[in-house]
Amino acid sequence: MKRAEVIAETKFLRLLGRDGWHYVERQRTSGVVAIVPVTHDNKLVLVEQYRVPVDCRVIELPAGLAGDLAGSEDEGLEQAARRELLEETGYRAGRLKRLFHGPVSAGLSNEHLTFFLAKKIKKVDAGGGDATETITVHEVPVAGVARWLRRQEKAGKTVDVKVYAGLYALRTH
Amino acid sequence: MKRAEVIAETKFLRLLGRDGWHYVERQRTSGVVAIVPVTHDNKLVLVEQYRVPVDCRVIELPAGLAGDLAGSEDEGLEQAARRELLEETGYRAGRLKRLFHGPVSAGLSNEHLTFFLAKKIKKVDAGGGDATETITVHEVPVAGVARWLRRQEKAGKTVDVKVYAGLYALRTH
Repeated sequence: MKRAEVIAETKFLRLLGRDGWHYVERQRTSGVVAIVPVTHDNKLVLVEQYRVPVDCRVIELPAGLAGDLAGSEDEGLEQAARRELLEETGYRAGRLKRLFHGPVSAGLSNEHLTFFLAKKIKKVDAGGGDATETITVHEVPVAGVARWLRRQEKAGKTVDVKVYAGLYALRTH
Repeated sequence: MKRAEVIAETKFLRLLGRDGWHYVERQRTSGVVAIVPVTHDNKLVLVEQYRVPVDCRVIELPAGLAGDLAGSEDEGLEQAARRELLEETGYRAGRLKRLFHGPVSAGLSNEHLTFFLAKKIKKVDAGGGDATETITVHEVPVAGVARWLRRQEKAGKTVDVKVYAGLYALRTH
């Protein structure tokens, strides 16, 4: 593979070019994780936060970057999933099941996501994210998630399409 | 909303900054569409192509940009979905059903995707993409898609996670 040319670089992102194609890469991370978290009474735990790029409050699966904290550059994906779930939602995961792994926008970035299923999670903290985040936690009965998502959209929020990949996982596990 | 600062700009992408957040925007497009195409005998039509950003052959839903062709800047999303399906797979869609719409990587880009379900599509051409694309078309029985995807991964390809959002749509429609 020919080496990519760096077109621009910031603290967080690099804009790269290779074979006439331009794309973006995150800096200082070893991977991105998303968690499909389900409580013992069959509620899906989703998060809501304002996202600058889309200028909107977005309903998402708990998710985050692995190895992005100074001193934890060798953090594994499962460890990151566990940390992000706890930070964002206040839920502690038992066993995590790896669901699938792949790019999410293969024409635009080299970002890969790894999805984990976390069943029978336990509330141990308030959640809400780290010092830089303001996250609202939602616990939604699995049977009514699709309806609930429509209501959120009517209220002016938007739904990350990865949520639907999570719902597929719920239907098949 | 404060106006975003342009950090870098190429023919295809802009790297933007706002409120200390950096993200990327596609140039010259009015939206991105993805299609969940199903044949009359219940096969899901998927495409495979080499993607420069991830340096790998990727299994994806047929998808593309609306309004990215000179002279068609006002192309609607449904029209783009119809065109991309035909270009990439050689299948012509009848009625399209809008499934969902949302960001796919709300921390990294302002890209929004709109998903359409296309049932009872009809093969009218070879497909394979436009002059710049080399696309392989796969017709996979819906009942065996999950197993088929695992086999593709074992063969060294990767699966775009949006495929799983498509599979959720298939389960619910």
